[in-house]
Amino acid sequence: MESLCRNDSILGCDVPYEEAKMVVFGAPFDGTTSNRPGTRFASTSMRQESLALESYSPYLDKDLSEIAVHDAGDLTFGFGNPAKILQEINGYVTKLLKDQKLPVMIGGEHLVTLGAVAATWNVYPDLHLVHFDAHADLRQDYLGEELSHATVIRRCYDILGRHRIFQFGIRSGTAEEFAFARKEARHLTQQKFNFKGLADVMRQLANTPIYLTIDLDVLDPSIFPGTGTPEAGGVTFDQLREAILLVGRGNVVACDVNELSPPCDTTGVSTAVACKVLRELLLTIG
Amino acid sequence: MESLCRNDSILGCDVPYEEAKMVVFGAPFDGTTSNRPGTRFASTSMRQESLALESYSPYLDKDLSEIAVHDAGDLTFGFGNPAKILQEINGYVTKLLKDQKLPVMIGGEHLVTLGAVAATWNVYPDLHLVHFDAHADLRQDYLGEELSHATVIRRCYDILGRHRIFQFGIRSGTAEEFAFARKEARHLTQQKFNFKGLADVMRQLANTPIYLTIDLDVLDPSIFPGTGTPEAGGVTFDQLREAILLVGRGNVVACDVNELSPPCDTTGVSTAVACKVLRELLLTIG
Amino acid sequence: MESLCRNDSILGCDVPYEEAKMVVFGAPFDGTTSNRPGTRFASTSMRQESLALESYSPYLDKDLSEIAVHDAGDLTFGFGNPAKILQEINGYVTKLLKDQKLPVMIGGEHLVTLGAVAATWNVYPDLHLVHFDAHADLRQDYLGEELSHATVIRRCYDILGRHRIFQFGIRSGTAEEFAFARKEARHLTQQKFNFKGLADVMRQLANTPIYLTIDLDVLDPSIFPGTGTPEAGGVTFDQLREAILLVGRGNVVACDVNELSPPCDTTGVSTAVACKVLRELLLTIG
Amino acid sequence: MESLCRNDSILGCDVPYEEAKMVVFGAPFDGTTSNRPGTRFASTSMRQESLALESYSPYLDKDLSEIAVHDAGDLTFGFGNPAKILQEINGYVTKLLKDQKLPVMIGGEHLVTLGAVAATWNVYPDLHLVHFDAHADLRQDYLGEELSHATVIRRCYDILGRHRIFQFGIRSGTAEEFAFARKEARHLTQQKFNFKGLADVMRQLANTPIYLTIDLDVLDPSIFPGTGTPEAGGVTFDQLREAILLVGRGNVVACDVNELSPPCDTTGVSTAVACKVLRELLLTIG
Amino acid sequence: MESLCRNDSILGCDVPYEEAKMVVFGAPFDGTTSNRPGTRFASTSMRQESLALESYSPYLDKDLSEIAVHDAGDLTFGFGNPAKILQEINGYVTKLLKDQKLPVMIGGEHLVTLGAVAATWNVYPDLHLVHFDAHADLRQDYLGEELSHATVIRRCYDILGRHRIFQFGIRSGTAEEFAFARKEARHLTQQKFNFKGLADVMRQLANTPIYLTIDLDVLDPSIFPGTGTPEAGGVTFDQLREAILLVGRGNVVACDVNELSPPCDTTGVSTAVACKVLRELLLTIG
Amino acid sequence: MESLCRNDSILGCDVPYEEAKMVVFGAPFDGTTSNRPGTRFASTSMRQESLALESYSPYLDKDLSEIAVHDAGDLTFGFGNPAKILQEINGYVTKLLKDQKLPVMIGGEHLVTLGAVAATWNVYPDLHLVHFDAHADLRQDYLGEELSHATVIRRCYDILGRHRIFQFGIRSGTAEEFAFARKEARHLTQQKFNFKGLADVMRQLANTPIYLTIDLDVLDPSIFPGTGTPEAGGVTFDQLREAILLVGRGNVVACDVNELSPPCDTTGVSTAVACKVLRELLLTIG
Repeated sequence: MESLCRNDSILGCDVPYEEAKMVVFGAPFDGTTSNRPGTRFASTSMRQESLALESYSPYLDKDLSEIAVHDAGDLTFGFGNPAKILQEINGYVTKLLKDQKLPVMIGGEHLVTLGAVAATWNVYPDLHLVHFDAHADLRQDYLGEELSHATVIRRCYDILGRHRIFQFGIRSGTAEEFAFARKEARHLTQQKFNFKGLADVMRQLANTPIYLTIDLDVLDPSIFPGTGTPEAGGVTFDQLREAILLVGRGNVVACDVNELSPPCDTTGVSTAVACKVLRELLLTIG
Repeated sequence: MESLCRNDSILGCDVPYEEAKMVVFGAPFDGTTSNRPGTRFASTSMRQESLALESYSPYLDKDLSEIAVHDAGDLTFGFGNPAKILQEINGYVTKLLKDQKLPVMIGGEHLVTLGAVAATWNVYPDLHLVHFDAHADLRQDYLGEELSHATVIRRCYDILGRHRIFQFGIRSGTAEEFAFARKEARHLTQQKFNFKGLADVMRQLANTPIYLTIDLDVLDPSIFPGTGTPEAGGVTFDQLREAILLVGRGNVVACDVNELSPPCDTTGVSTAVACKVLRELLLTIG
Repeated sequence: MESLCRNDSILGCDVPYEEAKMVVFGAPFDGTTSNRPGTRFASTSMRQESLALESYSPYLDKDLSEIAVHDAGDLTFGFGNPAKILQEINGYVTKLLKDQKLPVMIGGEHLVTLGAVAATWNVYPDLHLVHFDAHADLRQDYLGEELSHATVIRRCYDILGRHRIFQFGIRSGTAEEFAFARKEARHLTQQKFNFKGLADVMRQLANTPIYLTIDLDVLDPSIFPGTGTPEAGGVTFDQLREAILLVGRGNVVACDVNELSPPCDTTGVSTAVACKVLRELLLTIG
Repeated sequence: MESLCRNDSILGCDVPYEEAKMVVFGAPFDGTTSNRPGTRFASTSMRQESLALESYSPYLDKDLSEIAVHDAGDLTFGFGNPAKILQEINGYVTKLLKDQKLPVMIGGEHLVTLGAVAATWNVYPDLHLVHFDAHADLRQDYLGEELSHATVIRRCYDILGRHRIFQFGIRSGTAEEFAFARKEARHLTQQKFNFKGLADVMRQLANTPIYLTIDLDVLDPSIFPGTGTPEAGGVTFDQLREAILLVGRGNVVACDVNELSPPCDTTGVSTAVACKVLRELLLTIG
Repeated sequence: MESLCRNDSILGCDVPYEEAKMVVFGAPFDGTTSNRPGTRFASTSMRQESLALESYSPYLDKDLSEIAVHDAGDLTFGFGNPAKILQEINGYVTKLLKDQKLPVMIGGEHLVTLGAVAATWNVYPDLHLVHFDAHADLRQDYLGEELSHATVIRRCYDILGRHRIFQFGIRSGTAEEFAFARKEARHLTQQKFNFKGLADVMRQLANTPIYLTIDLDVLDPSIFPGTGTPEAGGVTFDQLREAILLVGRGNVVACDVNELSPPCDTTGVSTAVACKVLRELLLTIG
Repeated sequence: MESLCRNDSILGCDVPYEEAKMVVFGAPFDGTTSNRPGTRFASTSMRQESLALESYSPYLDKDLSEIAVHDAGDLTFGFGNPAKILQEINGYVTKLLKDQKLPVMIGGEHLVTLGAVAATWNVYPDLHLVHFDAHADLRQDYLGEELSHATVIRRCYDILGRHRIFQFGIRSGTAEEFAFARKEARHLTQQKFNFKGLADVMRQLANTPIYLTIDLDVLDPSIFPGTGTPEAGGVTFDQLREAILLVGRGNVVACDVNELSPPCDTTGVSTAVACKVLRELLLTIG
């Protein structure tokens, strides 16, 4: 007997794994979140909410039915062991890349990016990281822990090395993080507050493999309140959409969207926005 | 490639359809709800929340893994045509009964019961209805409409006829509804406020096919606030659990649980309670 | 041209003033509330919510259409001057009593009772006060102010004198308040935690004019969370309903229901409960 | 005896029907809403919230006391029969127009517009429709139903015919809806994302009777989250205000404001915004 | 024994009183709030939330550790006596100024400004008031009361006299208030809607003592919904931040930030924004 | 200069450490919470909310001013390393016991109990554990992790050994956990659903050192919805209060109250209840 409606693929993306070019999966981890936790619920909430979003983009005049995306569901994690969880993400992303799939990870807190970047860098040694965020995430450690949502880009810097990281939208951090960025300015690009210079960066990286990580709190909290640590002064949805277009036309080999926290999304708008960001991202890259 | 976790079967009930004795399905309709709508989201919310509930019942010393339940997902409805939706429910329940499955429907507003009762009555002409509810639902019409959550038991009475309906927990209605119940008292059993007399009724109905419909607002709003029209003075969870045990040991041939409204469930407790009611119901009948 | 539906009389009570025996009015004041304010919105919220409640009581087998109640709307107050507001309440209640109407006031915070009690005592010098509450409200002053929701019954005691006040359900107060109640025990009846002794009291007061003041936080916060200072360990809805029945059959000449705070009523249940309490109160007295 | 404050006319508009030039009324219907229902509560919530808004507009230097507006209250609808409800709206708007009143309808979901447009077109055969919305609402049917909030402008197109419809702000729809708009581009004006070209359109329509329908979700969800299907990338309040000014100075013969959903308005801002939009609309047209 | 973490100084500002140049304190009063009360909780909520905000400003490249700020806690007020509360604020500000501290008050409703302005004017007879707000606050009285959040700037005008008050961002008020502002236009500067002209004003006031009062509802409700009376059409966070920079570089001798209402801040964003505004204010002035 | 009000000691308990007999401290950890996190905010929320609770108990006729309690604030934890956090709790409890203070810990999730029990057992080798909870917490591991809120009592069993653990109120767990309890029934006392037998147990343990751990979800979710995994069918507040009285009169040498999750406490009632439980606990033991 035919099954009834299950509503269980994000944005209705139910192309079989074998035929898919892109694979969306959830990494529901928020174990190092220092303020309000809850990003563990992001992929589940987005799956449900995304069914109210049209599959067609009037910005791109393109429909999700035109591209081949599989939603694989969520990784299942234990609690209390971040290093092990990063290993599991690393393992799954490695598998996807080996199968010639473009990984699209939904966080979870930003630390999950570390597992995916490490796996992608193994396959693409020349990997460059384009990073949209309100926060610099450049701490050496956070309250003594080196694996943290507040250190994740510093850990990526440890892996990828100089000249590989390009931050945009940054408007929060410690004095030390900004001092580090200034000291390393020749090796690490940090654009504060907005996306100025992104087009130039993308021209430089024309044929380079790119990992795009979007911390959704780069958006202003007026349009994206549903995150653990909202920071006023962010970019608009249209600015983010255009930035995604700039990067997505490049050689993106893996990407993620993170830091939606449904328990903080009391209006429901943030989850809807996250889905729309994901739709535009998929349609641009796919 | 093996799929990741999808979290998409209610209470983890993923026995294949062919092997299942009971089939749970959602009927996400709230089109005649007169006060706060939202029951359309009940089955989806219960699927998600149910994953936090243990599959084992310490009340019954029994685990869901011991019984054969399939979650078929939700029926998909258009909007604005109650008669057509009742037909679709009727059709699906008919199919389940033909396939020798015991239907367990999750509402939706209470009107959905009419479609399932009609289908079950076609198969079991001697069908009796046991009805737990805060509201009598005995109106002839509601603002001119005969198909309504406020008329559903009256419509069942039209179908099943005299001596077949047993209401418990009723504490709200118009003067006319209660007058009707008094006038028909020899033909329709109405126990106000509680479950007194239920054990006797169940002894009478020992070998009779029963449809059990549970409007969750029979519970006191202290434990079940998440419904469109809360009525103080209801039964406790333990009273409902014991009433389900009484009925569930009888010859239940179909059943439903309805009127959870997730948008009204601001504490999340009501959805958790609905899942626990469903677990006890399945374990008792199954 | 005939007007459309305005939904503006509480519980649909729209008997014209001239024909009414009872007059419901709102006293939307919360200016001395020490914790979470918001009771100013109670009468407005109850008017709206009450339209979802049946006019018929299955407890009393009686309908609001059988009694003559007028909803007069709300008094309009300035802000920041409690003494003036009490004068305005006093003036309006005096007018109602002169017009042979039984005043039914909806608070607002409990201080509003003082204005109504003073006015009623002017007309009924032998007035006795029956007081249901979680809090003793017997302080001499609160942070230096003598007019406060925390001093209101002490102020009534100043007016009515000894042997006139009967408190039930009290489960919160300072050591001083309880010491005062013990010291005055022969002159002021205080029943802690429940309604024990109420039937005896009502027998004593058979022909005595009674002012009944119901602070809804006498209810347990499980069924009535929507109040500024919830206190666990309260009475159930059925216990309150029965207590109202005991008092309401006596010679109630004025009454009030207070301390619903809609901004604290995040589930909506408290407003529904307040309406049901009011319905039972009106039907019992009317 | 003089009545107390009832707070029951929207924005305090209590000019008697006979003296009024404009009549505001509510059409509390949300029966075909496909995602989150709740617009049925919009007119009631706006009535209450509007009392906190000043009657004076500093944008227009004009006060509501200078124009003649009557708030007639709400139409009362049954549940489950959209065609009948549209008939009732049609009948009431017809009556208003016959009485020389300018109808100002508050939805409800967008489908209510169909009843009012049909009535207005009967009186003004040359009626043109100016439509502000996030959604195209141009589907032929929605899950098999032709009367739906998602098909309403297509149904208006069926009635009004070519060259009569002007859409602005559209940023969501199916590929088919946008294809239809492109195909009919010479006959139906569709401006995506913003109000570009509106001034030109209004010059063309200088002496033409206009029905203005404002789906409030044309606003960005940052300022208007309280709607069933929020779509990022909308217009600002000031842009909408200026667009209303452009249209309102034309020959508007009827209008509506719809799709506020108070249960989705968890911050309360959306209801306040809806009231301010209505104030500016009334002051511009009146 | 060393104490554990108490998290009790706002933004971590725990310089001892004796060493501090600036003293932050709370004035938790909302007794004349006419719509939704709740600003009494602002200082407590900001203390807690502020711990999630970085102490470093990337806008100013400056850290709170570089300036000497003491958080003194909150004044304790009774309820129901605004005049007395203003006296207490006056007394405390007088003490701070005598001790050579720059007072930074956190409201509370806007009326608290009156106590602080009066005290500051006693010390600085040439005091000028720069006022950011959505509301003119220029009424002579509000429902008969002269001390009100809606009259506070008029009362300041009574004290400071002509040519001393400069309002920016005003977009709400009665016709009378705007007429008053026009009539007094040579004596009282009122810039509607935005900060146009502020740079010029600040050049004029180069060496003049300034009291800066920031009613946070000058911000658009998209970024600051958490206030009792949201008014669409406000300024952005960056515009406010830049306006603070303009004023803060002048001779500010006292200031306040008011009208955050945590019970209205259902998303949590407004409290975070208020903390960020305070951080930028302290770093600019300090 | 004297400091203003800081509102920073729970229930106003500000006896200096040196003079205190009991020390309250927070352990804000929720790193292994499997469903909804948020207990990290419990101690902070309780500190704030507790100021609205009277210091006097009418149940015990005793005031907090009569006993010597110090609130030490919260331990500060990093994120992502449960073993290290348990060490820190162990260290602090050890210090308190060495200083002859009775530790009263506020969780956090239930795992924090393990650190405190281990420390207390070092000082009292004959330590017995009395455990109130909805959940058995007896798993060997949870998704592979041995340190978890779901395994904490099993870990205590590993430490304390047989005949030392007494569970009450248990109504949730896996089939394996209940099988384990049955298998070990002679060595581990498990009372399901309620407190039956507690008086007998306390008679046995008359002179024995007791650690009392109260998982607040032992309460029914009607009165305590604010927890990550609500389980219907729990005990009432009065039942818990009386159970605390039974245990508190024994030789309690350390205790904790845990699993309040403020983000889940949408009504605010749960935090108020937690404070009242703590007050009764302190007054009984102290």
